[in-house]
Amino acid sequence: MKRYHRILLTGAAGRLGRELRKSLGTVAETVRITDCEAMEDLRPHEEAVVCDLGERQAILDLTRDVDAIVHFGGIACEGTFDAILRSNIIGSYNVYEGARQNGISRIVFASSVHAIGFWGLEDHIDADSPVRPDSLYGVAKTYVESLSRLYWDKFGIESLCLRIFSSFEEPADRRMLWSWLSYDDCADYVRQGLLAPRVGHTIAFGISKNAVRPVDNSKAGHIGWTPRDSSEPYRRAVENTCPPPDPNSVGARTLGGWFCELGHPDDTP
Amino acid sequence: MKRYHRILLTGAAGRLGRELRKSLGTVAETVRITDCEAMEDLRPHEEAVVCDLGERQAILDLTRDVDAIVHFGGIACEGTFDAILRSNIIGSYNVYEGARQNGISRIVFASSVHAIGFWGLEDHIDADSPVRPDSLYGVAKTYVESLSRLYWDKFGIESLCLRIFSSFEEPADRRMLWSWLSYDDCADYVRQGLLAPRVGHTIAFGISKNAVRPVDNSKAGHIGWTPRDSSEPYRRAVENTCPPPDPNSVGARTLGGWFCELGHPDDTP
Amino acid sequence: MKRYHRILLTGAAGRLGRELRKSLGTVAETVRITDCEAMEDLRPHEEAVVCDLGERQAILDLTRDVDAIVHFGGIACEGTFDAILRSNIIGSYNVYEGARQNGISRIVFASSVHAIGFWGLEDHIDADSPVRPDSLYGVAKTYVESLSRLYWDKFGIESLCLRIFSSFEEPADRRMLWSWLSYDDCADYVRQGLLAPRVGHTIAFGISKNAVRPVDNSKAGHIGWTPRDSSEPYRRAVENTCPPPDPNSVGARTLGGWFCELGHPDDTP
Amino acid sequence: MKRYHRILLTGAAGRLGRELRKSLGTVAETVRITDCEAMEDLRPHEEAVVCDLGERQAILDLTRDVDAIVHFGGIACEGTFDAILRSNIIGSYNVYEGARQNGISRIVFASSVHAIGFWGLEDHIDADSPVRPDSLYGVAKTYVESLSRLYWDKFGIESLCLRIFSSFEEPADRRMLWSWLSYDDCADYVRQGLLAPRVGHTIAFGISKNAVRPVDNSKAGHIGWTPRDSSEPYRRAVENTCPPPDPNSVGARTLGGWFCELGHPDDTP
Amino acid sequence: MKRYHRILLTGAAGRLGRELRKSLGTVAETVRITDCEAMEDLRPHEEAVVCDLGERQAILDLTRDVDAIVHFGGIACEGTFDAILRSNIIGSYNVYEGARQNGISRIVFASSVHAIGFWGLEDHIDADSPVRPDSLYGVAKTYVESLSRLYWDKFGIESLCLRIFSSFEEPADRRMLWSWLSYDDCADYVRQGLLAPRVGHTIAFGISKNAVRPVDNSKAGHIGWTPRDSSEPYRRAVENTCPPPDPNSVGARTLGGWFCELGHPDDTP
Amino acid sequence: MKRYHRILLTGAAGRLGRELRKSLGTVAETVRITDCEAMEDLRPHEEAVVCDLGERQAILDLTRDVDAIVHFGGIACEGTFDAILRSNIIGSYNVYEGARQNGISRIVFASSVHAIGFWGLEDHIDADSPVRPDSLYGVAKTYVESLSRLYWDKFGIESLCLRIFSSFEEPADRRMLWSWLSYDDCADYVRQGLLAPRVGHTIAFGISKNAVRPVDNSKAGHIGWTPRDSSEPYRRAVENTCPPPDPNSVGARTLGGWFCELGHPDDTP
Repeated sequence: MKRYHRILLTGAAGRLGRELRKSLGTVAETVRITDCEAMEDLRPHEEAVVCDLGERQAILDLTRDVDAIVHFGGIACEGTFDAILRSNIIGSYNVYEGARQNGISRIVFASSVHAIGFWGLEDHIDADSPVRPDSLYGVAKTYVESLSRLYWDKFGIESLCLRIFSSFEEPADRRMLWSWLSYDDCADYVRQGLLAPRVGHTIAFGISKNAVRPVDNSKAGHIGWTPRDSSEPYRRAVENTCPPPDPNSVGARTLGGWFCELGHPDDTP
Repeated sequence: MKRYHRILLTGAAGRLGRELRKSLGTVAETVRITDCEAMEDLRPHEEAVVCDLGERQAILDLTRDVDAIVHFGGIACEGTFDAILRSNIIGSYNVYEGARQNGISRIVFASSVHAIGFWGLEDHIDADSPVRPDSLYGVAKTYVESLSRLYWDKFGIESLCLRIFSSFEEPADRRMLWSWLSYDDCADYVRQGLLAPRVGHTIAFGISKNAVRPVDNSKAGHIGWTPRDSSEPYRRAVENTCPPPDPNSVGARTLGGWFCELGHPDDTP
Repeated sequence: MKRYHRILLTGAAGRLGRELRKSLGTVAETVRITDCEAMEDLRPHEEAVVCDLGERQAILDLTRDVDAIVHFGGIACEGTFDAILRSNIIGSYNVYEGARQNGISRIVFASSVHAIGFWGLEDHIDADSPVRPDSLYGVAKTYVESLSRLYWDKFGIESLCLRIFSSFEEPADRRMLWSWLSYDDCADYVRQGLLAPRVGHTIAFGISKNAVRPVDNSKAGHIGWTPRDSSEPYRRAVENTCPPPDPNSVGARTLGGWFCELGHPDDTP
Repeated sequence: MKRYHRILLTGAAGRLGRELRKSLGTVAETVRITDCEAMEDLRPHEEAVVCDLGERQAILDLTRDVDAIVHFGGIACEGTFDAILRSNIIGSYNVYEGARQNGISRIVFASSVHAIGFWGLEDHIDADSPVRPDSLYGVAKTYVESLSRLYWDKFGIESLCLRIFSSFEEPADRRMLWSWLSYDDCADYVRQGLLAPRVGHTIAFGISKNAVRPVDNSKAGHIGWTPRDSSEPYRRAVENTCPPPDPNSVGARTLGGWFCELGHPDDTP
Repeated sequence: MKRYHRILLTGAAGRLGRELRKSLGTVAETVRITDCEAMEDLRPHEEAVVCDLGERQAILDLTRDVDAIVHFGGIACEGTFDAILRSNIIGSYNVYEGARQNGISRIVFASSVHAIGFWGLEDHIDADSPVRPDSLYGVAKTYVESLSRLYWDKFGIESLCLRIFSSFEEPADRRMLWSWLSYDDCADYVRQGLLAPRVGHTIAFGISKNAVRPVDNSKAGHIGWTPRDSSEPYRRAVENTCPPPDPNSVGARTLGGWFCELGHPDDTP
Repeated sequence: MKRYHRILLTGAAGRLGRELRKSLGTVAETVRITDCEAMEDLRPHEEAVVCDLGERQAILDLTRDVDAIVHFGGIACEGTFDAILRSNIIGSYNVYEGARQNGISRIVFASSVHAIGFWGLEDHIDADSPVRPDSLYGVAKTYVESLSRLYWDKFGIESLCLRIFSSFEEPADRRMLWSWLSYDDCADYVRQGLLAPRVGHTIAFGISKNAVRPVDNSKAGHIGWTPRDSSEPYRRAVENTCPPPDPNSVGARTLGGWFCELGHPDDTP
């Protein structure tokens, strides 16, 4: 017997959304998938809805008859204030309102390392450390973490805010040798967030079992997740391709990496 | 010689804005005051500009030729998502962008106890404790605290985020016997934020020297502020008027008080 | 209007009980006082009941029609296991059961520095530090602190566990120059415990405003108590009478002082 | 050569006592086993003594010629105050007095998760967190932890207070999927407590290597224990049998589980 | 009766040494004062010895028949490695060896803010924070703090390591508005270090009761010192003379101020 | 391609230096090895220089054309003040000055458990805990840790201060069953210190994956080191040879072991 009758996956056409689709069928009988663009190759347990997170009424409809939400929708990189505002702030508010108005009790939210990007590798922060976003994108992630805290404290909706570091098929540069989160580890974490006996409001760090361990994830221990993958098999290839960075550069000493070095997205070029 | 040539005060027609106008003349030669409604009784050192924080270009103009900003504008209580979004999120973004584009190096921002309203009196949190907003209003305050952290880490703009508890002429109920911030103490804190040798990014608690001390403000010690007023002279009058609350009620045990008991502002009545 | 209709004071014939009787009339219309021996000079608002804390039914009767309890009864120094067991463990259990069965919602309990006596002056512990009792008497105090935590978490009865250091008319030796709690400060703390808007389960340190400050009482800040007295006026007299102790002796370096040097009370002489 | 000449095991006829008997022969030449009821199938290195922990003189005799004590005796579930008092408080005092009077230098004591049962899974407490018992049984465990601290600080007797979570043959419900301590892991922990180079006064959490990790046991790292078993092989069977609990129920969010939901044992039915 | 028969003051001809001479007569019958240059205007209770801290045998002789040492000798600003080595490292070692070989049980050592100079005003460090020296001078101060810890842990000699911030007659610049330690407050702290019931090994911050409070001195609360002076009366004069610094400069954001901006003393000009 | 062109190894003729020589060739094309005595069996990538760390000019020359330093030179046990001063304090200063003047950006320094030897096994300190040296040798190690912090904060030279516990071929006594650092684990840690993307100023504990875990090394997680060896295979042999120590002895309860029990090295025999 599966844990859920129907769960909703937002951002289903995105890079990580496509990966998550592969495994969410193990926890729910039906997976409603949504994105603002068309999704292909539907599995039998999937039902697809194309809609825009920024449209409140559409999202209220989308979240009907759903038991839990995996919220991976929205812009997944730095953007202008207006773009981030609509997609990540208004869009996420709509998702949480959908959950509240439709009685959904648990959400797994794709937060990001960029919510804490200006902390350093040597700071070894944990989930209770103050936020230090490195971009408007990161600020929006902290907004949703804060909003979800309200929805927990006041409305009893559980959230796992999963701060994804670098989830790609393979580590692509030297930073990812420590920040990499394999697709399998990412999917496992989302599943554990759906299956854990108790989530409450939890902030967790999504990072595989790499050699360098820059953060302390122990406060998410009740989720029951253990990473299985490591970047070590990719080390030689990466080190041959990418020269070592200056350890004193902002990009090398911060968790957020080159996001910390980005200029302001609203500056005209 | 005054410290600043010209500072900007937003929200100058509001309850606290009107109080601040009385003393800001001691730190700047000119105080530009702004609000979306007309401001009266201009002092010789004041120049008034009526404009809407939600209008980006207007705010970019408003912040020109200014050395520092006291940002008290925006909605000062719970409101619908759309209202808070425009006034407190977009509005504050515009203010910070004005600061960045016009080279302003310090901002005193009126944050609020409602950014941390779901913490309890017995938790004795400090400035590094995670946020726990009690309302959409409180979530917006955490958004600006997070945004200002980005503007500090990335663009070097200092912010004092002053979490005002209950700043009224007198304590009006039993909760304010501990949460009260007198007008004088509030104005002093803002002035110290403008005059302190170093602010960086500081989160501070604005609460007078009342008998009950529910939070730990020591991490703002470098601002150099000490409260002078106390609610004690008002105790007898308040206790005669207001019955003691149930200590186990949400309103009595949380920092946010009755905000924690408010329903959702977007629910139709 | 007084806060309470009727409060109960146990240990009313003891040294501190006699002091508390002087001021409890300000917070309750009636003060029921009890001890195992006769109490004299009843004030008009006092009603006296002689009974033994070790008798469960008597205590259930004693606690009827009472709004709050100030529990200062029991042995006030080291004693044999059997004596402490009956007076301080069974007796306190009876008091808490009386509170629970009679719907009393707040208790101020006379805990003691001897619950934490083996910590040192240099450790600067706070209310969350683990207990380190220095005597069977101290162990019993930790028992009641733990019991009262259960009665809070499970039955919603608030307790202020006031760890009294050395409450005497005057500081009698060099240790009391730092550990002294004046009678007035002690009575104030008890009154604040009864009047505070919210107590929950609070552990507090009862020590006057002496020059040496060996513990951190900030986690009781929500009680709203500030000491007013200091041992300084007594310094000269004490230092003339008592030679300085060896700073490396157990008695001089621990909070519990000579209690830490006592042998076991069950050893036959 | 074995480490100990003779150790004493109390509670030897209980569920865990019977398990421990299987392995204690590896650390001592003789294992004196005791319980208030008869023990069967004595191994060659075992000597059995039937006696009642509540009888002081009997326990003083029982602890003669012993090098170390494994104290697992007493009631192992919630009971009335009088029953717990005799069995767990007086009984444990007698055991510690036996140790002191007979020069025994180390004790492994079966404490319990119920000493901290009202903490939540998301609190991730460690050994220094304040106690929060969930039952009179749990309060008695905190009494012995406190008593053993006195016997360490004052009399130099080492104690490992092992807070056993759920030690059963198999995980029997969903809570045990995270709280389970296998019999082998339990026996290992006791053995390590006897063999560790230095115990001092240590509080440790007894929980197997399950997926969910709700507490931080690092402060017991000097004991040298590592769990080997996991509840994962039992997951499918348990999840098929037991429905998922409401994550917001007291039983699901606390470490103590359903003990937190028990009524008062002294209430007449 | 005075506490000490004879105490030794090193560095007695230095700026602070001359100040201390004014008040040490209140705690000892005889004050032996020493420096490498002549000291003038001896008071009746003073005996002067000219000698070099770098000469071991001379210091062993100097420390004979002494009860306590106030060690303010050595170079009081940045210097070359060789100069600091001889004066502050070898010299202090000689003083501690003198104490050990002559059975002296307490030392007040003039440590410095420059032992922690690279921490920032916003870090609010306390006595347990790691050292971050800002100069070879500061490194030498940390050496003596570490050495004195050894002499406490191994040889039972108490030390108060007083990290003096800026002890001058008046605050001379804007940094001193927060870092100032008045001469009276400095002398009081030294006296309290000599008179405190228990010092053990204590690290304390010497800073007057100025408006800006950049560090947390609570871990020295057992010394019993409270500052009485404030820089406020000097504020106007200082602010009129000195322009405000750039808050983002190293000198303005660190505790050590311009020491953090000094080049290496061994660089040839 | 190797990470470094040329690295320098000091103390190359010492016990650990000889071990390190076996593996440093994997990270640098040339390894310059140095000691005050002759080094034998040079590998093709090695170049040997005999010189004395106490000679400043020689060390300035020695550090020319080097990219990184592995500083294992100096006395490796307790010694007289004069010997330790020259070899470990002056010698290390010379090495750091060589690095600064020659533009070397990273150093791996052999610090020692004896920098923190007076902490106990039950204290579970981490890298930020204050130092508590157990010997003049340990004090010198804390000097270099402090000096290297200055060279990081002021001059941007990274240092990994590796506090080596007991690095020997095999665990030789019961203390080493927990303090052992295998030669391979030691060499790995040094290599990781050279290869890590970012070191900054890091203090790390060098201890293999033994059963007893007395310290918390998580703050060095960014170095990317994981121990592979364990003392378990040697347990039986050690326990058969060495009797168990008294757990209450200074040697058994401290991290520093018998160093804590050593007398003063300058005492004449």
